[in-house]
Amino acid sequence: MGSLKYGSPDDFRRGIEELKASFDREDVVSTNPDDLLIHGFSPNVWHPGVPHSVVVYPLSTEDVVKIVKVANKYRMPVIPYSGATSLEGQFVGHVGGGICVDVSRMDKILEIHEADSDLICQPGVGWMEINETLKESGTPLFFPLDPAPSATIGGMLSTGCSGTNAVRYGTAKAEWFLNATVVLPSGEVIKTRSRSRKSSAGFDLTKLFIGAEGTLGIITEVTIRLAPALPTTVAIAQFPDVRKATEAVIEILNKGVGIQCVELLDSAFMDATNLYGPSSRKYTVADHLFFKLQGPSASSLAETARIVKTVVQKHGGTNWSLAENEKEADDLWADRKNAHYSGLAYGGVGCKGWSTDVCVPISKLPDLVYETQKDIEQSGIKYTIVGHAGDGNFHSLLLFKTDEELKVVRGLVHRMVERAIALDGTCTGEHGVGIGKKEFLYEELGEGTVELMKTIKRAVDPLGLFNPGKVKFVEVSFVREIEGRSSLRENMIKEPGLIDNSTRLFSPYKRPSTFQK
Amino acid sequence: MGSLKYGSPDDFRRGIEELKASFDREDVVSTNPDDLLIHGFSPNVWHPGVPHSVVVYPLSTEDVVKIVKVANKYRMPVIPYSGATSLEGQFVGHVGGGICVDVSRMDKILEIHEADSDLICQPGVGWMEINETLKESGTPLFFPLDPAPSATIGGMLSTGCSGTNAVRYGTAKAEWFLNATVVLPSGEVIKTRSRSRKSSAGFDLTKLFIGAEGTLGIITEVTIRLAPALPTTVAIAQFPDVRKATEAVIEILNKGVGIQCVELLDSAFMDATNLYGPSSRKYTVADHLFFKLQGPSASSLAETARIVKTVVQKHGGTNWSLAENEKEADDLWADRKNAHYSGLAYGGVGCKGWSTDVCVPISKLPDLVYETQKDIEQSGIKYTIVGHAGDGNFHSLLLFKTDEELKVVRGLVHRMVERAIALDGTCTGEHGVGIGKKEFLYEELGEGTVELMKTIKRAVDPLGLFNPGKVKFVEVSFVREIEGRSSLRENMIKEPGLIDNSTRLFSPYKRPSTFQK
Repeated sequence: MGSLKYGSPDDFRRGIEELKASFDREDVVSTNPDDLLIHGFSPNVWHPGVPHSVVVYPLSTEDVVKIVKVANKYRMPVIPYSGATSLEGQFVGHVGGGICVDVSRMDKILEIHEADSDLICQPGVGWMEINETLKESGTPLFFPLDPAPSATIGGMLSTGCSGTNAVRYGTAKAEWFLNATVVLPSGEVIKTRSRSRKSSAGFDLTKLFIGAEGTLGIITEVTIRLAPALPTTVAIAQFPDVRKATEAVIEILNKGVGIQCVELLDSAFMDATNLYGPSSRKYTVADHLFFKLQGPSASSLAETARIVKTVVQKHGGTNWSLAENEKEADDLWADRKNAHYSGLAYGGVGCKGWSTDVCVPISKLPDLVYETQKDIEQSGIKYTIVGHAGDGNFHSLLLFKTDEELKVVRGLVHRMVERAIALDGTCTGEHGVGIGKKEFLYEELGEGTVELMKTIKRAVDPLGLFNPGKVKFVEVSFVREIEGRSSLRENMIKEPGLIDNSTRLFSPYKRPSTFQK
Repeated sequence: MGSLKYGSPDDFRRGIEELKASFDREDVVSTNPDDLLIHGFSPNVWHPGVPHSVVVYPLSTEDVVKIVKVANKYRMPVIPYSGATSLEGQFVGHVGGGICVDVSRMDKILEIHEADSDLICQPGVGWMEINETLKESGTPLFFPLDPAPSATIGGMLSTGCSGTNAVRYGTAKAEWFLNATVVLPSGEVIKTRSRSRKSSAGFDLTKLFIGAEGTLGIITEVTIRLAPALPTTVAIAQFPDVRKATEAVIEILNKGVGIQCVELLDSAFMDATNLYGPSSRKYTVADHLFFKLQGPSASSLAETARIVKTVVQKHGGTNWSLAENEKEADDLWADRKNAHYSGLAYGGVGCKGWSTDVCVPISKLPDLVYETQKDIEQSGIKYTIVGHAGDGNFHSLLLFKTDEELKVVRGLVHRMVERAIALDGTCTGEHGVGIGKKEFLYEELGEGTVELMKTIKRAVDPLGLFNPGKVKFVEVSFVREIEGRSSLRENMIKEPGLIDNSTRLFSPYKRPSTFQK
């Protein structure tokens, strides 16, 4: 697909004019340079960012179809955008320019079916908003996928996300997304599947779009399945080392008790939390497991806690602490959830963090952690470790201040991925490929497997319009990497696309004004 | 794809010769007419059966590659075959002839990873054999997908199967199949994914093959995920009607207690079971729910039973009966599992049964059941109802003896499917499309959705070699329908393919002798 031709700068200009003429509502089509930049760049990501040529804010499936038809007519890349929390550059612009389709105004919950445990919504609604709405309406259900707090349904589906609850509920690739309405690269609208819980009516097309990162279609409506919202509590214990902690996790999971989450937090994480965590609690600076227990009643929670405690102690766990009330449970979990911020604070003023993501079969987790710790410690980089231990999913927050340290961090990430792949694991457990993990796909999956992805991509998007350069489709060489604000501005000036921003300064990250409701 | 050309009869003859020459082991390539017929026909299915041109029994991925290369060279259709329990004609032969790839000798469990809760096996191993092996080895885990007892892993993946346990564990489309080694129509071998529990490394290619019914590739090795094997028990209750029973199911599921299965059995089913069930128990002839409860301990089972009983009684359930011991639980469940055989006996000597499969959002289940019952009763056909009520998945066993009754049954099935689709449901919850549900896909999914499936099929299998005529790919007109042994033989004689069986009589169904180990 290297020979694909996009439109010329003149085509793009005409495309943008046609987009503007297509919508009689105001504020739908933006060429505001701040919008273009903010939509093509994430302040938490250390991959190159590129501004878009134009940002469009559709309100409906029909609006998205209009946009895609213009994209086809003028051969413009289309980059879907929703919660903008992805960490591997999934929504950065195409270096030759393109249309960013920001679905954040398609944020309505359309139907709640309590009896069927499902809910129909638009792609721009957030999972936290869904759960708040369910709680407020007294519906005894919730949506269990819990990635970044601002993540929204469209991006969650497209990334194949998960989070801490995956131990109990599985990931986006399980059966939480029943169906999706999708605008294909041709502009055609399809609905992948019926609303029934089960279906074997042909290929599972919902799954085709899960993890496709917008390279095959734009999600415009989704039916999600809900789970009963059960009482939970939190327990923690410290361990002599990561291997003992992992052994405890394996035995606990095989007991089949009500474990919603099991998080592995290393001693540096506990140190950072003592200094900067939201609760006032002080933890022993040692490797910890944090458990979220769930059960339909107080007695089942108590039984689970007893069983978990026994296994924890068998594997050398000490300082077992079970939350005595809801407030204490919330405080403990808030300390875990604040990982990114206490980690950054731990690095000192001006510190930045690279959040990694690999996953291995759980029995290989200790090897992965030990070898990674050794590597990082030799490099002199400060770091904390957070792992979704119940899934073998491992994150490290690597801290840096200078361009030189960033270079060291980049090498550490690279080696961590290669280590995970060598341990029968994957370059990404939940953050996706974007542009950050593209280079590892052949190594992990083999050429034939990646070629099969490309075969499907070519068949569904023969013009290569949808999110080019992401996953592994259409190799694009970016002009140069952008690693800070000053070089970002420099890049914009050098960017050969449509935008002349040479007289503008970069504004700090904010939601574009046209978005505010 | 209607203009695709397969090889000529001479090509096929040369292909079969080349297959025979390719294997130095004996009994790998069979043109025994019994083999050809038995592999192309199922005694439990009322769709047309067609014999294959040749049956090959590979032992390895490499063997399958050899077969697929010959198929490419001589343009021969390839029809995968494993447990042969599918109910929609998934493995019937191609009317112009083709190669049946019977993977039943690839039946090895290769690795068991207790710590990782996964297992690697070949496609011909059965789920019951896996669970027996795990039990015998003392591994506290099991594989929870439970379709027909003889179903094997390759077919279970390809059909997107489930069973009674789906209420608790989801279907094949959840995360039970971690990865698969697949021989593509080109003969290339790929592995879809790493062995880690979670992965977001590009498209979820494992899922591409789940429900593809062998139209995209032949599964030659699979990593499955296992679940903790928990203590279970069984409880039953009778209800005034199906609506009350469904309301109870909805409320129970939203309690989040340990429900492994919820089966809806109608009064006719209970009558049949009283007459022909394996246990000596006599049930009230009324609509029943059968629950399989699960929990890590006796106290959690007792708590679940208390909660379920309360909800059952709230919705008018009576005659609550909780198994007092393992024997009683096994007996109750055996009566449920014997559905097909007690149903057939209920129809009287010489009776045959058509087992249907539709699925709707659970709130629509009563409407579906009532309208279907009314329709069947007007037709005078005898029937029993079994539903996986917790999923809205509904089966009816329609009983008949004559060709005329079969015609009436065919009409009932057709209307049941249309009714399910009108209720936001699907033409198949778990049996798949095969040739039996092809005609409903456009109605259920819309033309664009089916066309997207066809686009993918064309891209992955441009010659249309893999399982043509199934799902919705390559429309084939069968010579004539086969609805009994005599017409089957007639059809074989008329079959314009390679086989001259005119002097052979049809033998009763048995496993081909070459298969016996």
